[in-house]
Amino acid sequence: MPYDATMMADWQIAEEAEKYMPTPEQWRDKLYLEKDEVIPYGRVCKLDFLKIIDRLKNRRDGKYIEVTAITPTPLGEGKTTTTVGLLEGLGKRRKNVGGCVRQPSGGPTMNIKGTAAGGGNALLIPMTEFSMGLTGDINDLMNAHNLAMVALNARMQHEANYSDAELSSRNLRRLDIDPKRVEMSWVIDFCAQGLRNIIMGIGGKMDGFMMSSKFNIAGSSEIMAILAIVRDLRDLRERLGNIIVAYDRRGNAVTTTDLEVAGAMCAWMSNSINPTLMSTVEHQPCMVHAGPFANIAVGQSSIIADRIGLKMFDYHVTESGFGADIGFEKFWNVKCRLSGLIPSVSVVTATIRALKMHGGGPQVVPGRPLAEEYRKENLSLLEKGIPNLLHHIATVNKAGIKPVVCINAFDTDTKEEIDMVRRYAEQAGARCALSRQWLAGGEGALELADAVIDACNEEVDFKFLYPQEMPLRQRVEIIAREVYGAEGVDWAAEAEIKAKLLEADPALNDYATMMVKTHLSLTHDPELKGVPKGWVLPVHDILVFAGARFLCPVTGSISLMPGTSSNPAFRRIDVDVNTGKVTGLF
Amino acid sequence: MPYDATMMADWQIAEEAEKYMPTPEQWRDKLYLEKDEVIPYGRVCKLDFLKIIDRLKNRRDGKYIEVTAITPTPLGEGKTTTTVGLLEGLGKRRKNVGGCVRQPSGGPTMNIKGTAAGGGNALLIPMTEFSMGLTGDINDLMNAHNLAMVALNARMQHEANYSDAELSSRNLRRLDIDPKRVEMSWVIDFCAQGLRNIIMGIGGKMDGFMMSSKFNIAGSSEIMAILAIVRDLRDLRERLGNIIVAYDRRGNAVTTTDLEVAGAMCAWMSNSINPTLMSTVEHQPCMVHAGPFANIAVGQSSIIADRIGLKMFDYHVTESGFGADIGFEKFWNVKCRLSGLIPSVSVVTATIRALKMHGGGPQVVPGRPLAEEYRKENLSLLEKGIPNLLHHIATVNKAGIKPVVCINAFDTDTKEEIDMVRRYAEQAGARCALSRQWLAGGEGALELADAVIDACNEEVDFKFLYPQEMPLRQRVEIIAREVYGAEGVDWAAEAEIKAKLLEADPALNDYATMMVKTHLSLTHDPELKGVPKGWVLPVHDILVFAGARFLCPVTGSISLMPGTSSNPAFRRIDVDVNTGKVTGLF
Repeated sequence: MPYDATMMADWQIAEEAEKYMPTPEQWRDKLYLEKDEVIPYGRVCKLDFLKIIDRLKNRRDGKYIEVTAITPTPLGEGKTTTTVGLLEGLGKRRKNVGGCVRQPSGGPTMNIKGTAAGGGNALLIPMTEFSMGLTGDINDLMNAHNLAMVALNARMQHEANYSDAELSSRNLRRLDIDPKRVEMSWVIDFCAQGLRNIIMGIGGKMDGFMMSSKFNIAGSSEIMAILAIVRDLRDLRERLGNIIVAYDRRGNAVTTTDLEVAGAMCAWMSNSINPTLMSTVEHQPCMVHAGPFANIAVGQSSIIADRIGLKMFDYHVTESGFGADIGFEKFWNVKCRLSGLIPSVSVVTATIRALKMHGGGPQVVPGRPLAEEYRKENLSLLEKGIPNLLHHIATVNKAGIKPVVCINAFDTDTKEEIDMVRRYAEQAGARCALSRQWLAGGEGALELADAVIDACNEEVDFKFLYPQEMPLRQRVEIIAREVYGAEGVDWAAEAEIKAKLLEADPALNDYATMMVKTHLSLTHDPELKGVPKGWVLPVHDILVFAGARFLCPVTGSISLMPGTSSNPAFRRIDVDVNTGKVTGLF
Repeated sequence: MPYDATMMADWQIAEEAEKYMPTPEQWRDKLYLEKDEVIPYGRVCKLDFLKIIDRLKNRRDGKYIEVTAITPTPLGEGKTTTTVGLLEGLGKRRKNVGGCVRQPSGGPTMNIKGTAAGGGNALLIPMTEFSMGLTGDINDLMNAHNLAMVALNARMQHEANYSDAELSSRNLRRLDIDPKRVEMSWVIDFCAQGLRNIIMGIGGKMDGFMMSSKFNIAGSSEIMAILAIVRDLRDLRERLGNIIVAYDRRGNAVTTTDLEVAGAMCAWMSNSINPTLMSTVEHQPCMVHAGPFANIAVGQSSIIADRIGLKMFDYHVTESGFGADIGFEKFWNVKCRLSGLIPSVSVVTATIRALKMHGGGPQVVPGRPLAEEYRKENLSLLEKGIPNLLHHIATVNKAGIKPVVCINAFDTDTKEEIDMVRRYAEQAGARCALSRQWLAGGEGALELADAVIDACNEEVDFKFLYPQEMPLRQRVEIIAREVYGAEGVDWAAEAEIKAKLLEADPALNDYATMMVKTHLSLTHDPELKGVPKGWVLPVHDILVFAGARFLCPVTGSISLMPGTSSNPAFRRIDVDVNTGKVTGLF
């Protein structure tokens, strides 16, 4: 220990580390859990949320540490690696530490990424299970979600075929769904661009109701957003019943409760309420729970996992999706407001590579070799890019939380480059640590761990960006100005009409404001890097998620179904038929 | 014990019995398995096939008992109840007994059935897990199957958008798939009639390739057929790579191997190779593995489960789908030929109700009350229906196996009715037992257990209906005459041309002949009851499943996607939010 990450592929490191991985029984002892609180699922286990939270409800919470990032390149800047490294570093300091990350989608895993388990010596194990559906939560969610679509389309068919009297004899009332106002789509957990837009219900009277429909990727499902934010099973059941699937011809919402399918959806989800427990390669516990997208949904692992993590661990680390403008802003103003939990520290992950891109470096494209600017020292590009980091530091400061900048080190980074980032970060009032968890695991993350421990001792003066009672358009204005650095908001006529209607509805007062925006820029335009000035945020629509209780102002164009590339990861994945081992996931 | 099945719903019996259900550790001790051969998954466990078959490979096989049925009513005649009851009865006789059944599909569970776990005191537990996806095998199969469709459509898109040179730079050759000859469909495990026929790929150049497509129910997937018949993981990997997804414009098959997706499909399936272990309410072990449809596929639980079951148990009971003309015929000539295993006994499940229907009784329709003929003694209808039973007894006799008729008792059956069935069955040379497992569990199935034990002591002169080298059309002719009672086969012109081509291809010599026919009649027409005479079997197509290595002559019209009714079971399913218990599954 650590493993030689320069010579070993991730799956090789995983294979070695898995030999010493704690069994479910060992986790139970290690985490002082009761026998029936740990539910084994093969080499991993689920933690029984209801039992644990009930037994530990009076225990004082540990320190709550969030990991976010600067505006990333399309390659990602190693947020998961940093999260895992921080767990390992705190472990090396003999702290009682644990964490939670999101479950990866099969879409990117089969298409680009291979695995999303971190990398090198900052890796989650067992890696194969993590990459191949784990304990089935996403599958359960797909079944729950698609069952609602089955119920919807079958109901539309039966209403088209039967008279009111015939419906009534089946104890059904006519919902009179407007086929042009079906809001819900099907989900599948792959990058299936060919299912983005479909016509369904082709055939005779018994072959469904003919309509246009869509398949989105499972991570964008409203149910995934719900799983991330519910406090308990009762909350899950209630929100599942409020999902709007369509509107009727008079404009009234038709929900999963109207379709009498919400209970069965909850039945499919009843196992998913429990987080799955994984391990770092250095054997710190890390839960995996929920995987909502950050561009459309909350982009965080679950409140449920954080609730039990804070009871079980003195230091609980949780990861937000994408950059601080999207991930941290939602953690701050939505997740923490819903959970009532108060964070101690936010770690802002940065790479020299991404800062150079923000300074005007050449385009970074997945699958193509990096330009020379990224492989050699270039202090002037770096210095021009540093304002992006400073902007995110300032955002975290606005929440009253201390930021810790983590420079996720690459072997091409020079001492001068690292020193420059450190100098600027410290001038902005942040702690800063260089971290080499990929190369050296917990030993490489000691500086980060120490900075986080130190920051945890400071007072936190946590405050939301806006009060709950602030109307929607004002909230968006504040987020745009204070978090994105815009000079204002430009509402499309239709969006403004919708906003006024929504603001006037008292039933929506406690709905969270969930921005829909690219993570590749502080603006709505993924091409604009650095800290763009003199721009205005265009909002062209507002989506209503009545189950999650989200209002989502939409900026820019966001696809809910990625496409499979011409060189997808599944080409390289196989199974060793003698051992059953999955190969090619890296 | 037994539970009062007349007063308690199935879920109530399950709830009581689950309190005493063996844990994975207890199963390990009870079945003399090694520690790592039992893999816990919550309240159930998987059995590690590769490890168990390797350790026990030299042990002598136990007795191999198949459970089949007469031609059923649309309500089913209690084949699962009989299987579970037989396990319980043999358990009461202190035999080392175990079995295997198929995994139920979420489609019927959410639509009509509620659960398919048997009933009363002949019930499998834990019932909720059984009904809600168990250890995820069907989900894994859906992912494996749909990943092939993602690969197919994405490849068609890329080939349409890129030149040969551009494809070559991505290390891709042009497959030139004929969009009118895409053979594979998507799968989902619900009754989604609205997805039977779709147009996909609507949109721009990056939104997939536009084509017509289908969703079938997961149980009809070729991968499900493959899971049921493979001998081991190597066999699974090989067959997954031979699945024909489409034909190219020159008529050549395009396989999953051509799409470079077969390895990843096998990775998704690598956990499904291991059977799941459940329990009867009287705590006999019963595996659940694979769930192929019987009308289009082999309709049996897996060869893998039977292989380890015969090593672990002195008496191993396995269930075939539907009536003996479909289920037993495929068990006999396909499953046993592929596995090399030789059955000792076949149990033919019969009900007085179904025999009366075959004698000319009124239509039996799910959801409607039974006609009086079925609720009161009617010896003349019964006697007219008995030839259907005698026909199936004769079929089993042709295999050289001793049939045991099990009269699955209903409380409306009279002594005279039961005596009549017994008399005819015994005259035909079969053993016959009355069985009351629903009411009384193993105690109620002792007569059946004793008959089976007795039959197991007889010599078996097992012989196939036709030799492997017999050409396709001759095989169909023999099955039609000897098993269905037809006077011959009528080949549609196109089917005959196809048959000749297939017969001439030496690569197809070892393909199994897998009839596609309704289970509701001995003929191709579900309306024809009893033992129809003077009819000819029409074959209008032959499907080629190159992964499963099946040639499927198609008779009648078979839907691969059932429809959700206007009163589906999901209306009544819910979750108790205080305990997490699923309610309404019965």
